[in-house]
Amino acid sequence: MNDNKTEIIRILKAAGNKAVSGQEIGAKLGITRAMVWKYVRDIRKEGYDIQSSPKIGYTLISSPDMLYPEQIKIGLETSLFGREIVYYDEIESTNSIAKDIANRYPEGTMVIAETQKKGRGRLGSEWQSTPGGIWFSLILKPSIPLEYAPRITLVAGLAVAKSLRRFGVDARIKWPNDVLINGKKVCGILTEVDAEVEKVDYLVLGIGINANVRMKDFREDVKESSTSLEAELGKPVNRIELIKDLLYELEQQYIKFKTQQFSNIVSEWISLSDTIGKEVTVTTPVKIIEGKAVGVTDKGALLVKTRNNTREEIIAGRCRYAKT
Amino acid sequence: MNDNKTEIIRILKAAGNKAVSGQEIGAKLGITRAMVWKYVRDIRKEGYDIQSSPKIGYTLISSPDMLYPEQIKIGLETSLFGREIVYYDEIESTNSIAKDIANRYPEGTMVIAETQKKGRGRLGSEWQSTPGGIWFSLILKPSIPLEYAPRITLVAGLAVAKSLRRFGVDARIKWPNDVLINGKKVCGILTEVDAEVEKVDYLVLGIGINANVRMKDFREDVKESSTSLEAELGKPVNRIELIKDLLYELEQQYIKFKTQQFSNIVSEWISLSDTIGKEVTVTTPVKIIEGKAVGVTDKGALLVKTRNNTREEIIAGRCRYAKT
Repeated sequence: MNDNKTEIIRILKAAGNKAVSGQEIGAKLGITRAMVWKYVRDIRKEGYDIQSSPKIGYTLISSPDMLYPEQIKIGLETSLFGREIVYYDEIESTNSIAKDIANRYPEGTMVIAETQKKGRGRLGSEWQSTPGGIWFSLILKPSIPLEYAPRITLVAGLAVAKSLRRFGVDARIKWPNDVLINGKKVCGILTEVDAEVEKVDYLVLGIGINANVRMKDFREDVKESSTSLEAELGKPVNRIELIKDLLYELEQQYIKFKTQQFSNIVSEWISLSDTIGKEVTVTTPVKIIEGKAVGVTDKGALLVKTRNNTREEIIAGRCRYAKT
Repeated sequence: MNDNKTEIIRILKAAGNKAVSGQEIGAKLGITRAMVWKYVRDIRKEGYDIQSSPKIGYTLISSPDMLYPEQIKIGLETSLFGREIVYYDEIESTNSIAKDIANRYPEGTMVIAETQKKGRGRLGSEWQSTPGGIWFSLILKPSIPLEYAPRITLVAGLAVAKSLRRFGVDARIKWPNDVLINGKKVCGILTEVDAEVEKVDYLVLGIGINANVRMKDFREDVKESSTSLEAELGKPVNRIELIKDLLYELEQQYIKFKTQQFSNIVSEWISLSDTIGKEVTVTTPVKIIEGKAVGVTDKGALLVKTRNNTREEIIAGRCRYAKT
C-alpha cells in the first residue's frame, strides 16, 4: 500500500469517530480533494468501512481483520522490528521467503502472511497455518558466533510468553521455545541460520501463533495438544494489537540479548518455564537423553538429570514430556 | 561430458601408450566405429591429444591440464565425495553455487571451477583464485547439531594437510583450518552452514589450494604470506592426482568424524599443528583474545593462556600470530 493510503488511514484512525474533510486530508498530504477521494475508494476495496458525508468528510467505521502492514505500523513502538514489512495474502512459507530476501533486506524485516500453504515446523515437520492465526518471520543479523545461535530461540520464546501474558493468558515456555497455555501449544518457533562457522550471517525467526484459530480447525493429530488464544479467552484477540505488542517485546529482548549477560535472559526464562521439574525425553541428532529437567544453564542449555544420576547439558534438541 | 566420451578416455588411459582400435572401443560401448570417430573428434576439441593410425587405432598422447570431471572420476577411490561433479570453466564463486544447489544435490557433490571471478574468503574477504590453483566446494549433509559445525573445519584442515604432505611438502595447520608450508599459506577453507538451531541442513566446504599458482600472480597484499605447491616443490603438481587424493582423504576423515570420538581427529590435528606454542590474537564476533596457544580441547576449541593467566576456550574465530 502506498504511503498516501497509509497516511489517510492513520489520519482517520486518529480522528476516531469524528469526520475529517477531504480538504483537510488533502492539505496534510499535499494532494487535491479529488485525489483523496480516489485513495479512499481504493482503501475501501481492501475491506475498510469508510463513511463519507458531503460537506462533512470521511469517518472510519471499521478496519478489516487483516494483517496489512499499514495497520501494524500505526502506533508500532519499535525502532527496528517490523519497520519493513513484506505482506502476502497467501504464501508457501514465510521462513522460506525471509531466507530468500535476507541478504538484501535490513535487519528487523518482517515477512507476514494471512495463510501459509506449506508452513514449516521444526525438523521438517509440517506446521498447520489455519486461518485466524498469526504467521510471520523476522530477519535478524546479529554479530554473534555460530555457537550462540541457539540462544535466540530462548529469547524468542521468552518474548512471546511475556507478550501473550499481557493479553490475559498464563503462557509458559516449554524448552527450548514452544509456548504453552495450560499445557497445550499456542505458539511454535522455527529458527533457521545461515552462517560461516565463525559468524552468523543472518537468522530467520519464524513465529506461528494460534491466535483466533478455531479448535475445530486443528488437524486431528494435533488437536488434543493444541490451543488458541480465542479458545482460552473465550473471545478473539485483536491480532494487530498482539503483533505490535509482540514486535515490541521481541525487540526489547533482542536488545537485551545483544547488550547484557545472557544469564539475565535465562533467569527470566526460568521464571516462565513449563519444563523444569518435568520428566523429559530430549532428542538431538547425536543422542537421546531421558531424565528429569532440573534447570537451564547460564548459556541456555537444558540440564537433565538422568536415571543413572549423570547430568547432561543439552544446547538444542527436541523435548518431549513423559506421559503422566 | 557424456558417458561414452568419458568411457573412451578411460579406455585409452588404461591402454597407456598402446593403441586401441575403433572396433574394439565400439564393441565395448555398443556403438559403431563411425560413432567412436565422432566422439574422438569431440574429445580432441577439449584439449586431449589423441593420435589415430589407420588399421591400428587410437592412442592418448596427452590430456589437457584442466579439471574436467571425467579426469577426476577416473581412478577416484571415494564412495561419496566427488561422485557427482558440477564443473565450470569460470564462475563467480563455487561456494555460492554449492549453496544454491545443496538442497537438490546429493551429499558429496563437488562444485569445481578453473577460475572464480568472486572467490570468497572468510568473513567477507576476497579470495584470489589465480589460474593454476584448485578451487572447489563440497556439499555435506551430516546429521549433527549446529554446535558441532565448527568441527568440520578442523576435519577439512587435517585432510588437506595430510594429502599435501603425500605430495612432498611439510604442510601444517594454522588453527582452525589454514594450511601452511614454511609459515606461508597454501590453502584456505571457508565453511558455510545452513541449519535449524537443532540440526544442520547442509554444510558447504569451500577449499582453495594454491597448487600451480605462480608467485608473481599473487596479489601484492598477500604475496609475502602466501605460497604455492609449485613454488615449494620447484615443479608443478598434477592437479588431477592431487584432487583425487584429497577427495579420498576428506572422505576418510569425514567418516571418522561421523563414527568416532572427535578427540581422535583432534589428536591427529595436534600432531600437524602450526599454532600450538605460538603467541596469538584470536578475534571472534564478541571478543578479542590475546595470549599463547597452549592446546586444542577434545571438542576442537583452541586453548589460549592469556597474559593474566586465565585460560580461554575458543570454538571458532580468526587467528593471527604475533609478529616476532
